[in-house]
Order: sequence, then structure tokens, then C-alpha cells
Amino acid sequence: MVDYDQAQALLAQLAKSQPAPQTEFIPLSQARGRILAQNLKASTPRPEADISAMDGYALCCADIPDTGQSHVTLPLRDYITAGECPPPHQNGTAATILTGARIPLGADCVIARERVEMCDGTLRLALSDIAAGKNIRREGEEFPTGSTLLTAGQKLDWRHVALLASQNMKQLAVYKQVRIGLIANGAEFADNAQDCRAEINTPLLTAMLESLGLHVVTRVVGSDNRQDLQNAVLEMEAQSDVLITTGGISVGQTDHVLPVMEQLGASCLFRRVKIKPGKPLTVMTLGHKPVFCLPGNPGATAICTLFFVIPFLRSLINVKSESDIPYTSDGRSSFSFSSPAETTCFVPVTYAQSGKEGVFTAVPSRGASDILCFSHATGLLLIPAGQTLNVGDWCSAIPLN
Amino acid sequence: MVDYDQAQALLAQLAKSQPAPQTEFIPLSQARGRILAQNLKASTPRPEADISAMDGYALCCADIPDTGQSHVTLPLRDYITAGECPPPHQNGTAATILTGARIPLGADCVIARERVEMCDGTLRLALSDIAAGKNIRREGEEFPTGSTLLTAGQKLDWRHVALLASQNMKQLAVYKQVRIGLIANGAEFADNAQDCRAEINTPLLTAMLESLGLHVVTRVVGSDNRQDLQNAVLEMEAQSDVLITTGGISVGQTDHVLPVMEQLGASCLFRRVKIKPGKPLTVMTLGHKPVFCLPGNPGATAICTLFFVIPFLRSLINVKSESDIPYTSDGRSSFSFSSPAETTCFVPVTYAQSGKEGVFTAVPSRGASDILCFSHATGLLLIPAGQTLNVGDWCSAIPLN
Repeated sequence: MVDYDQAQALLAQLAKSQPAPQTEFIPLSQARGRILAQNLKASTPRPEADISAMDGYALCCADIPDTGQSHVTLPLRDYITAGECPPPHQNGTAATILTGARIPLGADCVIARERVEMCDGTLRLALSDIAAGKNIRREGEEFPTGSTLLTAGQKLDWRHVALLASQNMKQLAVYKQVRIGLIANGAEFADNAQDCRAEINTPLLTAMLESLGLHVVTRVVGSDNRQDLQNAVLEMEAQSDVLITTGGISVGQTDHVLPVMEQLGASCLFRRVKIKPGKPLTVMTLGHKPVFCLPGNPGATAICTLFFVIPFLRSLINVKSESDIPYTSDGRSSFSFSSPAETTCFVPVTYAQSGKEGVFTAVPSRGASDILCFSHATGLLLIPAGQTLNVGDWCSAIPLN
Repeated sequence: MVDYDQAQALLAQLAKSQPAPQTEFIPLSQARGRILAQNLKASTPRPEADISAMDGYALCCADIPDTGQSHVTLPLRDYITAGECPPPHQNGTAATILTGARIPLGADCVIARERVEMCDGTLRLALSDIAAGKNIRREGEEFPTGSTLLTAGQKLDWRHVALLASQNMKQLAVYKQVRIGLIANGAEFADNAQDCRAEINTPLLTAMLESLGLHVVTRVVGSDNRQDLQNAVLEMEAQSDVLITTGGISVGQTDHVLPVMEQLGASCLFRRVKIKPGKPLTVMTLGHKPVFCLPGNPGATAICTLFFVIPFLRSLINVKSESDIPYTSDGRSSFSFSSPAETTCFVPVTYAQSGKEGVFTAVPSRGASDILCFSHATGLLLIPAGQTLNVGDWCSAIPLN
């Protein structure tokens, strides 16, 4: 039996010993939610060329004679739209130019459409409006060629997809999705059990893990036959990077997870953790493959996954997505709670804004089996072993959605 | 031209006039991320029966003779595992019972395994450990039959999937995903354009909208031919609930969006909004179908979508997902910013925790076209028209991921 910190330290070590994540190439349309496995430097600047920021008229400032008058007239020549390469600027003329269109070579100023008057195809504009560079977006002013746009480990959302699109990336390297093999076991889950129960852990964990972009395969072993479980473990092990079992880790005659793991030659990283709920949590390795043996109670299983499995999976690929947002929410406690001397406790809470501070309120829970408490809660507080949370104390919760 | 509040009010009205969302039935395995379209009351209580909370021994308190001694011995009979319906309790005996197994009729106490001694098949336990109800989880103590578990409008994550699984829901009613038809247009996006540009808006908006569980179909019209755009609008309109166009809403000869909409008989809800960036934002209705005409600059398009399109889409189905978490993050500004008298401005910011308060720092932006600024930012601040944000002011940002 280890304590919370020891368990986390052992898992951090285990993560380091895992093989480097594999990469694969995917099309841009599938990039959202994946983890970038390459650095991205700009090969295309943005803007890609000097372009007009307005619908207006392109001219060259040096062409404009200093007549001492307030206004000047210029003959209009070309009509330049986005997508075409305009002919070079002709001295002493202006060209109609649309937003985003390329500035003709030799032009250096765009006067907005609404600032001029048109008269018989001739442009009349105020001298005071003319200034070099006006309304021109310069090639590379957002980012020049060679800029670092993204680095490996970035979890990709629309912001990053936009940058990838700006580089005309049709394919990109991402880390392969970690494949989770998830096995629930218990004779009570057989359709023909005398006292049949709803099997909650596989849909619960699948939803939780898939929302993180993991690939989950599940198997429910609805029997108390040890060989059935062993067959399932071997089959799931062959198609996954990390195994998770739920239930069957006590020492009753129907608790087959640990005997099966032993028979398959698994090594124990730790057996039970001083936490509540979730104490039965056991982690083994089967060859190099991590095996999380979770309790059967779905409340405990959810908490073990949130606090142990998911941080472990994140550390496998060193995801950058969460570094830039507060993963926890902070506020004051409106209740007091004391963890026993040796047991780290998890308390479901709601969060509400009160003036400029957040306030956490405890959600009643029936403990390890309770699942309803989570849908009433917005986060979980971790109260370390032997510590007391008092009313008004500042604390951090991890969010539940 | 309308101001920010007028535009939002018009959109709220438009949302109310939309037909009620349609529902469909999906299997539980596809529930994550969808919006529940039914209320869910418990037809199965949890626990489903009186069950043991421990591995231990089930007995009946009334059986225990008051011998005046500190310990008592009981013969052991049955071995009860989860999934079976045990025979009734036999007076004066105990039964081995595993965690989660059903309590035999007539037993009313479970003594934990580690609290007893076994001697030749006979159980020896302390009288002081015996108490009615001990280590028994009562049928319905988490929730009884008839409890309200979920209500329509709930966005489903693992917490709700667990509750649905507890009710053995194989199928559930959800709102059909809103179908978005997304059309980018501009000759500069044709592969064979002289001055070809990367088309960013469709991948950007697709990633943004798909992450909200919307169904997105895209079309890039890489020509300046009005008929091409009109054909695309008709085709996309037929397969979507909401249309979005990007680009082509100015009044140049290649700006065909408004003429096409007019020709198709669309009505204008508003034309341009006093915001920066995003001023060209125009909303029409084609029949009853909302059409968001967004600017071509991807930075402006992203902001229009975050502040106008997405709130509108949410209000169509009155989603409950966000009601329980703070959708904004709050903190103090580390910079000052003044919006012009008539223009609501959006400023990309980073958020950092400083002691117990969050601090926002402005991220430099090149304006309407800038996409790099978003990947450096964590949120967007809205500064209302005519207002000044001062250093130290308390403010709220909407998060970017």
C-alpha cells in the first residue's frame, strides 16, 4: 500500500520508461483534437504578399505633383481583384483595388474607396490622405517565413488548424492515439445472471477517455471464470497500449484480476493507495505495458481515472494543450472537511462565482459507488491525508467536464 | 449598421422564430457530446438491491444470543457472489458474501472479512462489531426509482453517460446535430489562381464548430463568377440548417454574396455591426434559414463566430452544459484599452494566475486578418463601445479553447 504522492511518483517513473510515442500522418481535416508531432515553421509568410487592406485605389506617392492644391486628380487604369497578379503600376495613374488583392509593383499607397470622388473615370482625392504604406498589409507582417508557428506536443484546436491551413498543410504528423483496452469483469454483468446489474464502468470510462482523443476498445467479461478473464486480457493486450480493468481486485474467490495478472507474469508497481474513494487501485506492468486495475465501484473508478490514469496518459506525450489555460478552478471553500491521518480524500463540489472569488460547496456523496454526485458537481477537491480544509480556505478543484 | 447589443437582440429574436429542434434516437455508445432531448427518471434504483459494501460475512443481528461474552461464533453456510440470488438467511448462521453481492433475505448486517477469525469453518467475531445495517448498501440509497436523473437540454459527458448506463439505456433521444453549410468564396482560392492564397476560413470554422458537436459541410467557391456562388448557396442550403459564408460581402465587382442572397429572395436581419474586428458581419434569412455572412479575414471571422454564431446556435437548443461551469474566466487587466465611442472591440489576452486573482495581458494583434494572435492567447476580452478598460480593472474573458 502506497500513499497518494508515492503512487504519483511511481507512475511518473513508469511514464518515463514507456517507449516514445509513435507518429502518423493525417489530413488537415482530421487534425482537431490530435497532438502535433512535428514543429511547424512558416514556409509561407502571412500575408503572402503586399496586399490591400481596403477596397480602394492604389497609387504611388512619388507620382503626385506638389501643385500646392488640396486635391489631386488621377486617371484610373486597372481593376485589381484578389487572386490575380496585377500589371506594374503606371506612373501618374491609380488602379481600383479590392481588399486582399496584391499591390501592383511600384504602387505604395491605397486610398479607401469612401475617401475619393470619381468623375468621368478620373479619381479626385485629398493630398492629405496620401501617405506611403497606407492601407497596405505588408508581406509577412503577421509572420515572416521561418517563424515558429507550432511545436510538437501541441493539442490542436481551431487556432492551430488555422495556422496549419495558412501553410497549405495537406498532411501533418501527429502522435498516434494511445489505444486503451478496457475490461470490466463480474458475473453480475452477464445478461443471464440471476441478479443482473447495469455495467456502468465501460461506458463511463469510454466517454471520459474518448473525450481526450484516446482510442478505446472495451470488453465486458460477464462470468466468474478465471480463464474467461485471462482470454480477454490476452486479446485486449494485443490491441492496446494501456490496459485498464475494473472490478475483481479483492481477494474473494471471484476476484480474478490479480491471479490472472500474476499468471501472465505481470509485475506490480503498487498495490492499493491510501485514498478515498479508490483505495483498491493497483498498477501492474505486463511486459512494458501499463495495466491499471481499478475498483469495480464506478465512483471510485472515475476518480482513479481522473487523478491517476489521465495524468499518466498525458505525461506519455507531454501534451501542451493545458499549459496555457488554468486546468483547475480556484476559490474558497464554504465547508470544512478533514482527511484522516493517512488517507487522501476526494470531495465532489460545485463552483459558483461570488463577487470576484469562486466559492466551492460540497456535493453529498454516497462514496465509492456514487455516480449521481458527479452530475451534480462541477469539480473535485483533493484534501491531502491529515489535512483539514476550513471554511474560507483557498483551494483548487479539478473540473469534471 | 447596428451596434453590438442590437445585433445580439436581433439574433435572439431570430433564434426564437426557428423551428423546434428535431430529435433522433442513438445508441448509448454515441451519446458523448450530444444534447439530450428527453427527461430521464430512474426506472432502476441504485443500488438495484440491498447489497454488501464489503467482502465479509452476512448475518442477522437478532440471531446472536446475548451470552455476556465479548465474542460469538457462528457456523458458515453459503458463499454469496455478485450476480447470484442467494438463498434466504438461515437462523444462527453466517454466509460469506462478496462486495456487491445481494444480501440474503433475513440478514441485516455484514461484518468485514478482516474483523473476524475463521476456525474450522466457524466464524468468530466481536459482539461489539455487530449492528443492524452495517456494511449494507440499501436499495435506492443513491437514488430511488422515480428520481429525476437528467433533463432535456443536457449536454452529455461521461457523468451523464454513467447515469444513462445505470438505467440500461440502449437508445436515447438526442437533438439532431445542427447542420452547418459553410461556403468560402474568392478567386484567390482557386488552385490555378495567378496569386493563389491559402483558404483558412473553412478549416478554421469547421474545427471550431465540430468541436461543439455540429455537423459541418464545406464548399470553397474559387471563382469570381456569381453563378458559381449562387449554385453553391442553393446546393448547401438544401443540406443544412444554418448557412455561413465567408468573404465577398463588400461592394466590389467580385463581392457576390449580397447580390446572390438578394436574387434568392433573402431578407436582411442586419447589415454590418459596430464592432472591431468583424464590422462587415451581415445576417440574412433565406426562407426561415439563418445565413451568417462573415468577413473574409479569418481573424474577424473567428471572432464573429465566437461572439455571434455560436451563441445563436446554442440558443437554438438551449444547451445546459455551460450553465454549471464558468464559461468566462475572470481577472484583472494588466493593460488599458479604450474602445472608440461607437465601436465594441475584441482584444486577445493571455490569462495567468497571480496569487488568488487572474491577470489578463493583451496579446499583440494585427487585426482582422491575424490568426497567429489566437494561438498566443487564451481568451478574448470584449470592451464595449465608448468604454475604457484601465489597469487593475476586473473583467471577464471568453476562453479560446
